[in-house]
Amino acid sequence: MIIVMRKEASDETIQSTVETVESMGFKTHVIVGTERTVIAAIGDDRKGDQEILESSPFVEKVLPILAPYKIASRETRSDPTVIHVRDLVIGGGDIGLIAGPCSVESEEQILESARLVKEAGAKALRGGAFKPRSSPYSFQGMKEDGLKLLATAREATGLAVVTEVMAPDQVPLVAKYADVLQIGARNMQNYNLLQAAGETRLPVLLKRGLAATIEEFLLAAEYILDQGNSQVILCERGIRTFETHTRFTLPLATVPYLHEKTHLPVVVDPSHGTGLATLVPSMCLASVACGCDGLIVEVHPDPQHSVSDASQTVSPLTLTEIVESCRKVAVAVGKRMG
Amino acid sequence: MIIVMRKEASDETIQSTVETVESMGFKTHVIVGTERTVIAAIGDDRKGDQEILESSPFVEKVLPILAPYKIASRETRSDPTVIHVRDLVIGGGDIGLIAGPCSVESEEQILESARLVKEAGAKALRGGAFKPRSSPYSFQGMKEDGLKLLATAREATGLAVVTEVMAPDQVPLVAKYADVLQIGARNMQNYNLLQAAGETRLPVLLKRGLAATIEEFLLAAEYILDQGNSQVILCERGIRTFETHTRFTLPLATVPYLHEKTHLPVVVDPSHGTGLATLVPSMCLASVACGCDGLIVEVHPDPQHSVSDASQTVSPLTLTEIVESCRKVAVAVGKRMG
Amino acid sequence: MIIVMRKEASDETIQSTVETVESMGFKTHVIVGTERTVIAAIGDDRKGDQEILESSPFVEKVLPILAPYKIASRETRSDPTVIHVRDLVIGGGDIGLIAGPCSVESEEQILESARLVKEAGAKALRGGAFKPRSSPYSFQGMKEDGLKLLATAREATGLAVVTEVMAPDQVPLVAKYADVLQIGARNMQNYNLLQAAGETRLPVLLKRGLAATIEEFLLAAEYILDQGNSQVILCERGIRTFETHTRFTLPLATVPYLHEKTHLPVVVDPSHGTGLATLVPSMCLASVACGCDGLIVEVHPDPQHSVSDASQTVSPLTLTEIVESCRKVAVAVGKRMG
Amino acid sequence: MIIVMRKEASDETIQSTVETVESMGFKTHVIVGTERTVIAAIGDDRKGDQEILESSPFVEKVLPILAPYKIASRETRSDPTVIHVRDLVIGGGDIGLIAGPCSVESEEQILESARLVKEAGAKALRGGAFKPRSSPYSFQGMKEDGLKLLATAREATGLAVVTEVMAPDQVPLVAKYADVLQIGARNMQNYNLLQAAGETRLPVLLKRGLAATIEEFLLAAEYILDQGNSQVILCERGIRTFETHTRFTLPLATVPYLHEKTHLPVVVDPSHGTGLATLVPSMCLASVACGCDGLIVEVHPDPQHSVSDASQTVSPLTLTEIVESCRKVAVAVGKRMG
Repeated sequence: MIIVMRKEASDETIQSTVETVESMGFKTHVIVGTERTVIAAIGDDRKGDQEILESSPFVEKVLPILAPYKIASRETRSDPTVIHVRDLVIGGGDIGLIAGPCSVESEEQILESARLVKEAGAKALRGGAFKPRSSPYSFQGMKEDGLKLLATAREATGLAVVTEVMAPDQVPLVAKYADVLQIGARNMQNYNLLQAAGETRLPVLLKRGLAATIEEFLLAAEYILDQGNSQVILCERGIRTFETHTRFTLPLATVPYLHEKTHLPVVVDPSHGTGLATLVPSMCLASVACGCDGLIVEVHPDPQHSVSDASQTVSPLTLTEIVESCRKVAVAVGKRMG
Repeated sequence: MIIVMRKEASDETIQSTVETVESMGFKTHVIVGTERTVIAAIGDDRKGDQEILESSPFVEKVLPILAPYKIASRETRSDPTVIHVRDLVIGGGDIGLIAGPCSVESEEQILESARLVKEAGAKALRGGAFKPRSSPYSFQGMKEDGLKLLATAREATGLAVVTEVMAPDQVPLVAKYADVLQIGARNMQNYNLLQAAGETRLPVLLKRGLAATIEEFLLAAEYILDQGNSQVILCERGIRTFETHTRFTLPLATVPYLHEKTHLPVVVDPSHGTGLATLVPSMCLASVACGCDGLIVEVHPDPQHSVSDASQTVSPLTLTEIVESCRKVAVAVGKRMG
Repeated sequence: MIIVMRKEASDETIQSTVETVESMGFKTHVIVGTERTVIAAIGDDRKGDQEILESSPFVEKVLPILAPYKIASRETRSDPTVIHVRDLVIGGGDIGLIAGPCSVESEEQILESARLVKEAGAKALRGGAFKPRSSPYSFQGMKEDGLKLLATAREATGLAVVTEVMAPDQVPLVAKYADVLQIGARNMQNYNLLQAAGETRLPVLLKRGLAATIEEFLLAAEYILDQGNSQVILCERGIRTFETHTRFTLPLATVPYLHEKTHLPVVVDPSHGTGLATLVPSMCLASVACGCDGLIVEVHPDPQHSVSDASQTVSPLTLTEIVESCRKVAVAVGKRMG
Repeated sequence: MIIVMRKEASDETIQSTVETVESMGFKTHVIVGTERTVIAAIGDDRKGDQEILESSPFVEKVLPILAPYKIASRETRSDPTVIHVRDLVIGGGDIGLIAGPCSVESEEQILESARLVKEAGAKALRGGAFKPRSSPYSFQGMKEDGLKLLATAREATGLAVVTEVMAPDQVPLVAKYADVLQIGARNMQNYNLLQAAGETRLPVLLKRGLAATIEEFLLAAEYILDQGNSQVILCERGIRTFETHTRFTLPLATVPYLHEKTHLPVVVDPSHGTGLATLVPSMCLASVACGCDGLIVEVHPDPQHSVSDASQTVSPLTLTEIVESCRKVAVAVGKRMG
């Protein structure tokens, strides 16, 4: 890291800062500039001592050199991580489609959903049994009954099941039924949950928090990876900005940017990312065009009777059209959509 | 709620929307305007059917009339909620000061911190035993040992203990040692945790999520209140915006705004809200001036050797000066700072 | 518009609000709900009286029904506006490419740029002669000399010239040399400039302000349209959010959203939208996939020697590859890229 | 500045980067770290060559050491700048109050406003003659007639006149009538306007742009200062964030932060900063408590009949109460409010 001293720092202060830095295990290099002195600290600056130095009244700022995540970094592993679960392939040129309703509502609904999204081209079924809802007065999900119905739908169709887990002590239960554990945006920094998911050997679909930086997103992945679970799927689902015409702002440049920084695959959720069903098809196409490794789309046999997230849910017919166009775009950019 | 139909909606579509709305239990009122027809739905629109209506291709938008929270609302209870715990009083004209280090580091550190912040005027001691850290490689807290040290510090000083709980299954353990349960910003929408805290009868200090709207903040409080725990303290700790010169943006207008909307008390955290120790005193003064019911401030006997959050931590001497000035401002605005 | 009265509003207050609303030229309709009374005001609510009503202590909020822009609205004109200028076609299925350096630097540089971008497939040359720079110490552009060189490059290549105008009194000068007037993001709400550009009959490329809502963006276009100039090209160039890994956040959902709301064509600027040359190709592909009507890309014969915006500038070779892939994606989504 | 090379940069690449940096006039210092090589460039890094280096495929990032503004910096001048104009004093311990209606509407209205705000304690009258309005269909101001009425109000009361100028070619006209030129938030990066205002010798009240960083804000001030006009008053008026319960987010930490970085005085506009009249008094108090040098408040003799910004406008009676409380808080923090 680089420590920029304040203009008024004396030689003694600089010397004492050098000693502090060296006591942290760094080698140092002092550079006297025209208006400032800076200290270059040589070593691994991921240990988070930055703030201690910043708290000195003679330090103007501390600039880290290295990214704070390691296992997730492309420098650690240059080959892309590819996730295979049942027929779903995510990464390495394959674009996997995960689709289904916001919530599991009934056996009939989830079975019909599964059948229809499979027909449209999906390889995995999404559907919430535990639902994080901003209001305590909204439908909170069917819980274990919902998980059982998801398993039934998997039996019937062969689709992999992707479903959300909300608390560390739910992990064993959800892991019993799910093929992929989903961690929601509001839980991206629920570190106990990340660790509990990291202790399983199931792939984890980790959604970006709505105000998370890319660094925080990769550090959240690092919590899972650090427990020995290497199968993390990153999911861009939109961030909170001043824009209100869409529910969130979907920043697609994160797709190629993440590909530069990490070997983990990146899927996009255009349903939550926009909150508007009419924008979902275009955003699916854009995601494929810029290199996503998968899509996760909210689909309901009868969108207007979805018990949650109705406004962003598309019909199975629309999904079929989306897949058709996405396949063409995938070919145009040298990828496959199964 | 008000349902605005699209310009092109036919009489049949309008009629069928009216029927849908009525089937949800609302009375309706159709108003034919010059360019649009709108349907007024009369009844309690907190049930979240809004999205179902919005998903219709003939509905342009749905405008809710009522705020979605109830128990937290000032309309439900006009008297302010006042929290009393040991000598700490928050609300109703009293400004309570909570102070202490970011983390519990050792017996000596926490005892000295407790003694010094008490001398400076604090009525409660803050200090993390379980630490949510963005990196898995950072110090994660002393866990139960830390809780025990907090209890020791309480014995020694009489200060109330405010400490963070990170997961639902930690609640019983933390509740054994704490006087006030803190729920961190990153867990504001960890609904299982909110419910678990709601099941205790300890006051809960609920920090605003860094991208949470006021409505979401009050709905998170509603999760706790809805479990029968009426002692919720709201804490503004800064939001994430495009600003980078401070760690977060501290939007103080939330203090008087929350006082308009809710009877719950509001404390401010200028340490996290700015991330810069030099700005903490001014932001304490501003918070008191605009009507906050309490302050929570990071203080360390030796800020530069704090193991976490060093850059935003003030010294006990600075805290003493802050309290002195804040008391004067409190008097100027007709309040008391004990 | 819908006026929501506060819970405590008396019958008299409601009656007097009704009278105020009627005095503004609206018909009214009073709806007594279970917890609130709302007044529906029937008429054209674009006149901006909303704030007067909101200032009443008995009014909780005022909800507008109509969008505030008219001429730009798709309801006013359902056919898309297509811009033709020399060989550049923007809109109606055609994706026009505008490319060139950030600034005009010299005759050699601009001629070579023009030649190379034409070869790569561009139909228009961009290049700034007047440069809005955040620092007064940065290069401010070659001014009229730069405009002359742009005209020379047009002579040599036949490319249309797109260049920025920064002040109302510069409009006649810039209009003498340019085929398309560009109004920059920082000037999107420079109303005098918008009106001056509206008085010309040249197409205007209007960049979205970095904190502008879609409504404000379309109202800025409305300022130009309202002067009788119907040739407005909207340009999404990224917004300012908490993200720092890219220079701005490029929210591509605005492309299909704008197509729903307005007949004006939409181009995307992935160079400013990301600030990183390595992300430009992917974001060009994504823009085409989601339906943009044009692209504006910063290209320099020798990116590393560009005097401004070097980090987001691609080489002519990269541009050639971008065009090649974009053409394939355009075909996949049923469009043409010339 | 510090140039961080990519991990894969070869010795040749590093050497060639060193040469580029030296050719820009810097001395260099190469530091070989454990995972990266960094080049320290010694010299004045305000010249903006950063981007050229960043465009190299072997450079990971470039970290500037110095702030890009000079004349505005506290390092250039440590004494605070104090603005005196008629009885208005801003800075150096004095808190000046500027108050008045959003727009000049009529002789009667502006004279009565002036008389009432003077009685309440204001030393300057604000009021717009040229109004930047987001919609072309809203009232655009009385223009020169409005300026004349402001001058009449000054005659009658002795108050200094603060009024907005929107375009460079309006500067001479507005300067004829105004005591202080106001540059609005939407024009903060209208560089031609900044330069034109810099050419006068009137104090300039420069409002922060709604998405401007502090660095951009100070660079905008630098444009004015660089023309030889040293009388710049910075005005925090709220930024655009995801918050919607207030019109903007008012980040008061900018007040003490700006005082650290610049000698220029800082005033706060709580009317625009919140958009809600009920929050204005608290935010005035908070601004004074955290050290502002002035306040600018929208006041109308009859707020509900204000032709613009009615919802954020307070009555003269409220202003009187605000001044009374602010004076007490000013004393509590060791300042004077005249």
